[in-house]
Amino acid sequence: MTKDVRVGIIGLGNMGSAHARMIAEGKVPGLRLAAVADVRAEVAEKFPETTFFESGSELIRSGLVDAVVVCTPHFDHTRYGIECLDAGLHLLVEKPISVHKADCERLIKASEGKDVVFAAMFNQRTDPAYKKLKHLIESGELGEIERVQWTITDWYRPDVYYSSGGWRATWAGEGGGVLMNQCPHQLDLWQWLFGMPETIWAECQIGRFHDIEVEDSVTAVMKYSDGKRGVLITTTGEAPGTNRLEVACSRGRVVLENGKIEWLRNEVENREFLRTTKNHFGKPDLWRIEIPFENTGEQHLGVLKNFAKAILEGETLIAPAAEGMNSVELCNAMLLSSAEGAEVRLPMDSVRYERLLKERIAASKPKEKVDEQGAVDSEEFAKSF
Amino acid sequence: MTKDVRVGIIGLGNMGSAHARMIAEGKVPGLRLAAVADVRAEVAEKFPETTFFESGSELIRSGLVDAVVVCTPHFDHTRYGIECLDAGLHLLVEKPISVHKADCERLIKASEGKDVVFAAMFNQRTDPAYKKLKHLIESGELGEIERVQWTITDWYRPDVYYSSGGWRATWAGEGGGVLMNQCPHQLDLWQWLFGMPETIWAECQIGRFHDIEVEDSVTAVMKYSDGKRGVLITTTGEAPGTNRLEVACSRGRVVLENGKIEWLRNEVENREFLRTTKNHFGKPDLWRIEIPFENTGEQHLGVLKNFAKAILEGETLIAPAAEGMNSVELCNAMLLSSAEGAEVRLPMDSVRYERLLKERIAASKPKEKVDEQGAVDSEEFAKSF
Repeated sequence: MTKDVRVGIIGLGNMGSAHARMIAEGKVPGLRLAAVADVRAEVAEKFPETTFFESGSELIRSGLVDAVVVCTPHFDHTRYGIECLDAGLHLLVEKPISVHKADCERLIKASEGKDVVFAAMFNQRTDPAYKKLKHLIESGELGEIERVQWTITDWYRPDVYYSSGGWRATWAGEGGGVLMNQCPHQLDLWQWLFGMPETIWAECQIGRFHDIEVEDSVTAVMKYSDGKRGVLITTTGEAPGTNRLEVACSRGRVVLENGKIEWLRNEVENREFLRTTKNHFGKPDLWRIEIPFENTGEQHLGVLKNFAKAILEGETLIAPAAEGMNSVELCNAMLLSSAEGAEVRLPMDSVRYERLLKERIAASKPKEKVDEQGAVDSEEFAKSF
Repeated sequence: MTKDVRVGIIGLGNMGSAHARMIAEGKVPGLRLAAVADVRAEVAEKFPETTFFESGSELIRSGLVDAVVVCTPHFDHTRYGIECLDAGLHLLVEKPISVHKADCERLIKASEGKDVVFAAMFNQRTDPAYKKLKHLIESGELGEIERVQWTITDWYRPDVYYSSGGWRATWAGEGGGVLMNQCPHQLDLWQWLFGMPETIWAECQIGRFHDIEVEDSVTAVMKYSDGKRGVLITTTGEAPGTNRLEVACSRGRVVLENGKIEWLRNEVENREFLRTTKNHFGKPDLWRIEIPFENTGEQHLGVLKNFAKAILEGETLIAPAAEGMNSVELCNAMLLSSAEGAEVRLPMDSVRYERLLKERIAASKPKEKVDEQGAVDSEEFAKSF
């Protein structure tokens, strides 16, 4: 195959427009922007050269595209995703792949037995720091992972952000708060680097910093069957906030923070030293290591390029969409644990969570105080993820 | 009053010997070492110039002392403490003041209405870093405290430490593990700096790194009525470990780590900026501040000096013993929460915890593998707290 893949974009919000522009500008070898769709007729003018549909389903049935990128509001990912897969089209879904696990299961089921590429937009997997950390873990250099602590409290969002749309930060509009909207990347990286825990206990504070009906502050503890423990803390209400990933392992301690990877490496593996030293207050000798890496990955562009190459040359996907269920499950389990005030065992019962979410959606109300003047700048928005 | 206070030390283990030596060497103005007591007759030779008793109760009744420092194994703090108070003697108790809250209540009750000085050995309150942080909080400079995260995983103890005594790290011998033995200082500083939480959820992993029957790895989440959240993580099994205290507040973020206090200060208070900014992705402007402080406090010596001055001149105590119940309650509540698999509300039911501890003590066994050769070096030991 050497012919370009004809791509359709469904949903021309901030992220969809950014992706469409990159493809239209020829930045993604192998992809050609063939059609765009949005329910708002007026956004057609953003891409005057490209066939426009007011309905995603029409775009899917048009015969004009071989592949689709779904960038609609979260709740429509499942529906359009399934339509694409049923039509035999290659599919790239924005994060989160669905709002809840049961929808993920439906989406993934629709992909079974289909000879299509099915990917998810987890652009942060292209970040050299996380790639390096993944390499260190998989190569065995770090030994056993004992403890993970990720504090991501620099997802700062002031009130004006939330009041820019009545649907923002509502259960009906987005299906969650910081976990569903800002944190899916870290939740995906978490499961990509450390795997899925056995249980989750979490507290999700609803509208602690902002007048919103969803969570804006979360503390979660994850237990793994091998004894490893993880703590994730996130909020949109803290300034200046922290983004620090600390990984304690038998070969020492790795910290990712401020664009640096610092590794304090135990010369002797801790578990061995612990058993064999004769010194009551001794510790393994250390090496202080800083691991250099390039500062930026290709992010969204990298995922789009990979999507093209996967279709044209069979390249391995950076983020197969089926893996996208894990971050949704982590998010759902945190919300479920907090609502029930109890630890949740994984795999989580997807029906139980769907029931909780539907109750919340039924009681959900669009925000009354909407500041139409405060429209979000699209470029700033795309950069912020 | 100008006459020196005649002090007796009960318990000549590592800490008791260190305190006795400081007093005997005249390092504590106003205190004179008048008597020492230990159940082991052979330790009398450590202090040949001083009257020795094989029984703490005899020392208390001897009429030779005006004040007592209790440095026995944890479980005897309550009993000797009460005897001292009933005899009208001034009292300084090593940490923890008792092993469980009900015993703390008994001890504190015995002090009521007595005209004596009743102090606890929380020497880390003399540390200039914590004093400075306390000053910043109390002066209002930090605004509202929003989140506290203290990772204290540098309490490293290899197996040889635990096998140095059959009683070590057993429920019967010490009444707990890292929380009862290493962490009381941080638990005290926690309540001193941030107050007591409303609820605690914790997991205490029993013998995760070591072959011991008590906890050696803890993850605890504390909720406060004002919305503030705290996470405390500690273990004796991690090398090199971390000691990092992060405090997020409306005036920015303070981090105590590696002997430094770093404060990223919000020029505008966060809660105000959040409400008033028109910029969706804006953040308050920052000042990067490093706060200098002297590197060491007077530690144990400082507390002994303060004890003397409190008796002789009415100086305010660094750590009134009644406050020592708080760190015990935090420790107990973490162990109770973990055992029950549920959040514990504070004030904790002291009877419920005493029942759990008694069950554990009944099932407790001294360690079989004891390495008598591996006796702990006393000076190294004292330094390690």
